[in-house]
Amino acid sequence: MRKAMMRSFGPPDVLELVEAEIPSPKPHEVLVRVTSIGMNRSDVDCRQGIYPVKPHLPSGIGWEAGGIVVQADENSTFKAGDRVSSLPCSKFVDVTDYGRTADYFVANAEWLTNTPDSVPDRDAGAIWINYLTAYGALMDVGKLEQGETIVISAASGATGIAAMQIAKLSGARVIATTRSDDKCDRLLAAGADHVINTRTEDYVCRALTLTGDRGADFIFDPITGPFVARHLEAVRRNGRVLIYGVLTYPEFASFDPDVLINKHITLRGYTVDDPYLTDRSALTAAIRVISDHLDEGGLRPVICRRFPLEQVVEAHEYSESGQQFGKILINP
Amino acid sequence: MRKAMMRSFGPPDVLELVEAEIPSPKPHEVLVRVTSIGMNRSDVDCRQGIYPVKPHLPSGIGWEAGGIVVQADENSTFKAGDRVSSLPCSKFVDVTDYGRTADYFVANAEWLTNTPDSVPDRDAGAIWINYLTAYGALMDVGKLEQGETIVISAASGATGIAAMQIAKLSGARVIATTRSDDKCDRLLAAGADHVINTRTEDYVCRALTLTGDRGADFIFDPITGPFVARHLEAVRRNGRVLIYGVLTYPEFASFDPDVLINKHITLRGYTVDDPYLTDRSALTAAIRVISDHLDEGGLRPVICRRFPLEQVVEAHEYSESGQQFGKILINP
Repeated sequence: MRKAMMRSFGPPDVLELVEAEIPSPKPHEVLVRVTSIGMNRSDVDCRQGIYPVKPHLPSGIGWEAGGIVVQADENSTFKAGDRVSSLPCSKFVDVTDYGRTADYFVANAEWLTNTPDSVPDRDAGAIWINYLTAYGALMDVGKLEQGETIVISAASGATGIAAMQIAKLSGARVIATTRSDDKCDRLLAAGADHVINTRTEDYVCRALTLTGDRGADFIFDPITGPFVARHLEAVRRNGRVLIYGVLTYPEFASFDPDVLINKHITLRGYTVDDPYLTDRSALTAAIRVISDHLDEGGLRPVICRRFPLEQVVEAHEYSESGQQFGKILINP
Repeated sequence: MRKAMMRSFGPPDVLELVEAEIPSPKPHEVLVRVTSIGMNRSDVDCRQGIYPVKPHLPSGIGWEAGGIVVQADENSTFKAGDRVSSLPCSKFVDVTDYGRTADYFVANAEWLTNTPDSVPDRDAGAIWINYLTAYGALMDVGKLEQGETIVISAASGATGIAAMQIAKLSGARVIATTRSDDKCDRLLAAGADHVINTRTEDYVCRALTLTGDRGADFIFDPITGPFVARHLEAVRRNGRVLIYGVLTYPEFASFDPDVLINKHITLRGYTVDDPYLTDRSALTAAIRVISDHLDEGGLRPVICRRFPLEQVVEAHEYSESGQQFGKILINP
């Protein structure tokens, strides 16, 4: 089989496709033929060597994939032919040996789930990291309520779009932010109630105007760094700011603590592990809700672009180009 | 009557005692003869002109006081002779006209309560700001649980000591921090399980050692600024950090957002208004619990030093000297 390997940490061209043995599943593991690999920011960070979990080199790469079960324990909940996709479980998978940017991968059955009926095999890598990240943040941790206003920043990413869809299903009002006029139009078409172009408009001023000077109830942000101080201005008294990424790496967050204190703001760090790594029943419930909404059409992954496996370098290049709107997939 | 007035914002000697008319209560207001005035950090900040609510000059000063009712509405819940003390309600009292560093003050009956039986008149200004601030933070907002470990930083202040007592009553383990060896001993005597002298010891290292490298469950901090980054190191995964003061004013808080994100830390700004300004039933319940514990001896205000009203300048000077251990009172 083919498998993407990193020789060193660095730009996209540290990646190369190599021939490798099809891995053998151990007990409780499942062998999957890959039909869809999801690109995430964590893949770029991993390749650059700045992701918190750093693999040993040379290393595989890629956490998110879906496909068809080839081989499984006879005691397993899965059997050959099942359509499956990987659940986010970054702390459990060491991409050094188990990188999923490949024709096959093995996974512990516990961290696979059935691909929803409405999701074709080629999109099976476009679901769980984004929808579970957004659902966990907005619903399980952030308790977004009907009628609330949420700011979703850097909304053009796949998790931003997933969050917009979940927020709208919950009856919330969505203010999306982006840095390009072209994406403003696409975000409105994708369901945002309002869009702020933070490159050309004063984000705080616009957010306050859009909320009658009250401030947003909730802000969901993967940018952080200097944006944190601005979020504290844009959120309402007793509001909440969930940060889940560091697009401004390695900039620190810096702000006037008086603002956090006097507005009683909750600033919370979040990853998808937060609600789901230790609470299996919450994970199962979230998977069920997301699957149902996918099958009923309330949630619909937006696929930005597809690359064949031999263009893994181009996929990484594109992922860093800032053009992304929705999910980038690699289809072997 | 005598009343402390600020001519300008600045050092303690901008204050002077002047003769003033005894104020007349309007409907729903109560006239109180003052027996005890509580000094708080907010008084110092107000005098320096850095408190968020800035009075017009010349201005009175002082939010916390207790004493004996002289005059009240006949429909009031209070009558002449009642022992009362003021509840924290910074957003409702404009010290420009209603400064309580005086022989008398008027207050809306809604923001007075009965002084607990066990608290003598001369200590009536030593209860509510500190115990409600600590109780609201630890119990109503922070949900401190039995067996948890809490770091209480700058623990020698009256709110720090109140928090230590409440934490111990709740079955939590207390790590107190201070910057003097002398106060280390006094904090241990006052109930802290462990003390860290942050001037001579590595705070993060010691906090991790004391928690078996796990980190504290909860940190309650009035310092902020550069301490925020250290708290994020010292708190456990999924832990919570409540900040309620800015002793490092005007320093900003600055930290690596990756730490907040990957540890799923909740960093929350807090003032006593947070749980109690809009939730009267929570306030009533907290007053009841605190009163009962005061009367039963589980909570005991530590009085640091008393000043007569004519020494209001000295009281402010002392309050800024860093020698404080417990509550500074002015007894007219």
